[in-house]
Formats: sequence, structure tokens, C-alpha cells
Amino acid sequence: MKPVYQANSRLDLSFTRVVDVPRALVWRAWTEPALLKPWFCPLPWTTIDCEIDLRPGGVFRTVMQSPEGAQFPNQGCYLEVVPNEKLVWTNALLPGFRPSLPAATCGSEDANFMFTAMLELADDAAGTRYTATVIHADEAGSKKHAEMGFEAGWGAALDQLVAMLKRGV
Amino acid sequence: MKPVYQANSRLDLSFTRVVDVPRALVWRAWTEPALLKPWFCPLPWTTIDCEIDLRPGGVFRTVMQSPEGAQFPNQGCYLEVVPNEKLVWTNALLPGFRPSLPAATCGSEDANFMFTAMLELADDAAGTRYTATVIHADEAGSKKHAEMGFEAGWGAALDQLVAMLKRGV
Repeated sequence: MKPVYQANSRLDLSFTRVVDVPRALVWRAWTEPALLKPWFCPLPWTTIDCEIDLRPGGVFRTVMQSPEGAQFPNQGCYLEVVPNEKLVWTNALLPGFRPSLPAATCGSEDANFMFTAMLELADDAAGTRYTATVIHADEAGSKKHAEMGFEAGWGAALDQLVAMLKRGV
Repeated sequence: MKPVYQANSRLDLSFTRVVDVPRALVWRAWTEPALLKPWFCPLPWTTIDCEIDLRPGGVFRTVMQSPEGAQFPNQGCYLEVVPNEKLVWTNALLPGFRPSLPAATCGSEDANFMFTAMLELADDAAGTRYTATVIHADEAGSKKHAEMGFEAGWGAALDQLVAMLKRGV
């Protein structure tokens, strides 16, 4: 059976890296709040709160804080949870699969910024093959996410994740 | 574990009916295109096309036709599939969990009309207990869905479904 996800290079952003840490620990770092908060935002930004209900429709909520102390809450829900292998979530649906409030995005520069994110983990001779993909409704959303520094930001966060795991969890 | 869905009477519409047809046939009528098309739109509207990929992220697409021949395509994806028991889908995400295009809804009267629908089936002494629930992002979306005749429309479609099953599938 073909996968439900159909890649679209105009609408999607993706990068793959091999990291020399165990797959099961990368999974834990993405799915346990105490292990997610230390690495999830590239410093000097930090993640000051995190809530995870690891099942389809369950909450994935984080609060990011800028170096100046401004707080930025984000909320969405998980769509697919395959332990140690695949994690899919979106900000287009809130917990319980309730649609996100369109009033918060219509007419603003965030209007095109609904996305679904997919994390895929696989074994690699050198450790773990790590693929992160974000998919959007239109090119404007994809372009905005790219300009916000998707790959650099997620890459810097991944460096922090790996460093944390090497220090020992 | 508490269910992921948290009811909100300001945002949700729901009705329950007991129908004297077998639960497994109601499920088939909702999940097989050839059995869905005959009843899905209250006459004189009809459903002239239907595509179903029955798994989370899989397509649920229908084309409704007005008595005058105008065609109205609808597309979304499934979120939860529990055979003979629970079917959840949304129009806020397209197949593969891709967010729906916000440009199609921003600024129009459809702006608040993203919804997630849940069909729940249970055994009842008289046949099948049938509960349909639609959940919205805000009160405007819920109100609009109510004004469009959610309960009357889904109820009339259910009457057609039951009549079809009694004729024999």
C-alpha cells in the first residue's frame, strides 16, 4: 500500500541527517517533556513548558521564550505515533482533533502557516538516520517556513539534542 | 485514559439515534463508495462521486450535485478508523495530513467552517446506536453548521441509509 504522504517539492521542506546516537533515545528526546525542553529551541531561545499526550489526537504543546523573556505558546495534536520510527503532528488541529481557530491566522502574516510535521527515524550503520519534513497548504506557507530558517533552526536544535544525549540522560 | 475528544457545547453539534439495522452494515454504508453514494446526500441532492482510503491520513472525497446539476466537491482525510465502532475525519487536513488551503476560506463566509466529524456506532437492543458529532474551532463555525441544517440533513441522510440497508445491499 502506498504511504498516505505524497511529497510535493513546492509545498514541503525536508532534511535528513545521520546522527551517532541511538534511535530509541532520539525518540525519547522527542516524546518526554523533561527530555524535550533542554534542546527543542536553538539557544538563546528556550522551551519553558511542554505537554505531551502521545497518541493520535493527543496534545503537543510547547511554550518558547525569547532571550528578552517574551513567551510564545504553540499547540497542536499528534496524528501518527509509531514508537522509535515515526511521529506526525500538526498545528491545524488542536487536541481532540478540533480545528485550529482560523480567526487567529486569517488576514495576518501567519495566514499560510498551518503545517504538518513528520519525524522519521531509521537505523544507520553510523547511528540513526533522522529525517524531518514539514508540509504546507501552499507555496506561501512553505516559503515562509524556509525563510524563518526551518533547516538551520531544526538542525541547530538537533545538534543540541545530540549533545544532550551524549552527556547522558 | 480519558478520550482525546473533550466535548464543548458552544463549539460542537451532536445527535444520537437508534436505528434498527446491523452495526456492521452501517459501517459498510459509511466506508464503501458504492454503498455511500446512494444515501449520503438528502434527495433531491445526490452524491455522484466518492473516494475512500480507509486509514488515518487517507482520502475521504465526495462530489455532491444539486438538483440543477451544480457540482460541489469536498475533500478531507480520516483521522481515526475503528471498524464498526468509530470513524473520525476532517476537512482541515487533506490526504497525507496536508493542511487545507487557508486562502480558500480566509475572508469568505466559509472562513469558520473547518470541522472534524465523528461517527460512533454501538450495539443497542433495538439495533444500532448511532451518534454523529461535528466539532468546530469557534462558535461562528458551529452556528453556521447548525443553520445549514446539520441535524436535519444528517438525519435525512441517515433515513436514506437505513432504507437502503432494509432494501438489502
